[in-house]
Amino acid sequence: MLSKVRIALDAMGGDVGPAVVIPGAAISLQRHSATEFLLVGDRARIEPELEKHPALKAASRIVHTDVAVSGSDKPSQALRRGRRTSSMWLAIDAVKKGEADVAVSAGNTGALMAMSRFHLRTLPGIDRPAITGIWPTKRGESVVLDLGATIGGDAHHLVSLAVMGAAMASVLFNKPRPTVGLLNIGAEEIKGHEEIREASEILRARNLPELDYIGFVEGDGIGKGLADVIVAEGFSGNIALKAAEGTARQMAELLRNEMQRSWLSKLGYLFARSAFQALRDKMDPNKSNGGVFLGLNGLVVKSHGGTSAEGFAYAIDVGYEMAHYDLLNKINQMLNREGGALNSVQAAQEAVS
Amino acid sequence: MLSKVRIALDAMGGDVGPAVVIPGAAISLQRHSATEFLLVGDRARIEPELEKHPALKAASRIVHTDVAVSGSDKPSQALRRGRRTSSMWLAIDAVKKGEADVAVSAGNTGALMAMSRFHLRTLPGIDRPAITGIWPTKRGESVVLDLGATIGGDAHHLVSLAVMGAAMASVLFNKPRPTVGLLNIGAEEIKGHEEIREASEILRARNLPELDYIGFVEGDGIGKGLADVIVAEGFSGNIALKAAEGTARQMAELLRNEMQRSWLSKLGYLFARSAFQALRDKMDPNKSNGGVFLGLNGLVVKSHGGTSAEGFAYAIDVGYEMAHYDLLNKINQMLNREGGALNSVQAAQEAVS
Repeated sequence: MLSKVRIALDAMGGDVGPAVVIPGAAISLQRHSATEFLLVGDRARIEPELEKHPALKAASRIVHTDVAVSGSDKPSQALRRGRRTSSMWLAIDAVKKGEADVAVSAGNTGALMAMSRFHLRTLPGIDRPAITGIWPTKRGESVVLDLGATIGGDAHHLVSLAVMGAAMASVLFNKPRPTVGLLNIGAEEIKGHEEIREASEILRARNLPELDYIGFVEGDGIGKGLADVIVAEGFSGNIALKAAEGTARQMAELLRNEMQRSWLSKLGYLFARSAFQALRDKMDPNKSNGGVFLGLNGLVVKSHGGTSAEGFAYAIDVGYEMAHYDLLNKINQMLNREGGALNSVQAAQEAVS
Repeated sequence: MLSKVRIALDAMGGDVGPAVVIPGAAISLQRHSATEFLLVGDRARIEPELEKHPALKAASRIVHTDVAVSGSDKPSQALRRGRRTSSMWLAIDAVKKGEADVAVSAGNTGALMAMSRFHLRTLPGIDRPAITGIWPTKRGESVVLDLGATIGGDAHHLVSLAVMGAAMASVLFNKPRPTVGLLNIGAEEIKGHEEIREASEILRARNLPELDYIGFVEGDGIGKGLADVIVAEGFSGNIALKAAEGTARQMAELLRNEMQRSWLSKLGYLFARSAFQALRDKMDPNKSNGGVFLGLNGLVVKSHGGTSAEGFAYAIDVGYEMAHYDLLNKINQMLNREGGALNSVQAAQEAVS
């Protein structure tokens, strides 16, 4: 466990930049006072914001650059233009150099993933990184990965995701052996893609000490909280996430509109305000903000680009927790311990293909 | 347009059987009096239910069999045990023989699809069938396919789905040229599976007169109503459907619990009852009941197994509409017209692979 967590922030990331990032950091600092910030970006835009938050100012150091990756840059463009100079790169670079324990950016996902992967490299035994999110469920929260970093993948990839997701869940939920399910259609063993069935067999056969594999979980099982960790390759993980987010937003809007339709329902809204507040709190997309990149030699957290200061603070919180509980080390230990098994799976697959 | 629609019902399908199927048929008959029913199943269990609904009795004929496919039968088992004898098979058989315009069953999906495919065969130019659903959106409703019939598929398959989905949407929404989107992650052309990008190029290049291709749609774009038709291969379509259904249920439960937490919020609920009723109506899973099997030489509608009589009535309604507006003929016409183009795509792909 780290006593002090050093967080590098891409101050220019997101739709707004410093005016969201800096107040967001101030909010998170109130919750975790043992934080030091590296604020990477345009000093002329960061300093005025920082003046409003003396406590944050005292805990921060500015790393100036006037290069910023734009939201519309393709990953390859971002790498070409922003390598070694952009605020996004320099935040990741601070992690690489050991000057920060985690980097947080609201910049564009493709660019952030490309730079993180290029600069930090994947962990031994991991071919491809994943974006991991925290999903509000009926029972509390679950860790869901991959939310869109890597499209497709073989059984080995899915098993690696299970191991990394379990490490994150054990840290987040303080469970030594979190339950893990594989996202699939139909709960029967006969359905789904070949690699998912194969990953299922491996997880069952290996019976790893760090995770409790419970089998297949359908799309509606995520919200039911059927497992602490839900594993999917990035395409279906992203589809599930977006479909769920879209439905939540759709229902909230529908309800809001209906509540304003008559004075009686408006009155009802006033009386039941606490209930609506609770619903908003539990389904608040801000609180699920913070996609953790797993599988790299360093921790990087991606915030939504269009988030508020409150939302960005949650993304920083996620980074804080991951660094504080030394997630990276934990993942490395698990991968090393299971590495032989995972690699032998991979070798067997490669021999066959 | 058919003046009279003949519907074959698998009276034994679903968790309950005749006690849901028969009253469901009675409800649907009230909405569409120009319907004739073939009730296939155990006469001893159907007749007592039918006695309660004289109007339905007058419009129905019973086809007796005491063989029923069980909810737990695997598709191969169902085919082995239930071929030529089960209520499910005989309902499909009525469509095959031209004695019914559509079959509706709440029996198990895998068995129903296997039997439908085996007995009705796929349409010329269609390799694999799809399950098609109606999705409530912010703007109204959209047609979404494939919800889980066929896992994976090449660009040709996706283009076929687009054509069939557009035919269904034009019938349902009375639009000559419905908009069509391909489900993908990220709206940029660079993301997603190869076959999705390829299907996108084909749809753009062909510029079909029957559909207006609008490009990629992300998971949250379905509920926004970005397109009249959303096309996905069966795995991701099913994941999207289940994730959305799960979220809707999760939010409804959460809201219900919160509304009962204090007398003030209970009072609020009473005042705003009409708003909650409207929300329930719009997101009612009963109303989305009825997955249409497309791509076969005959119409088959699958109802949820655990549905109520109200829900089953909606599935019958869907079957009625599809038959009434002669969907099958419409699809055939479109496939014939575009058949050359679709087949040349397929031929090109096969030559490459």
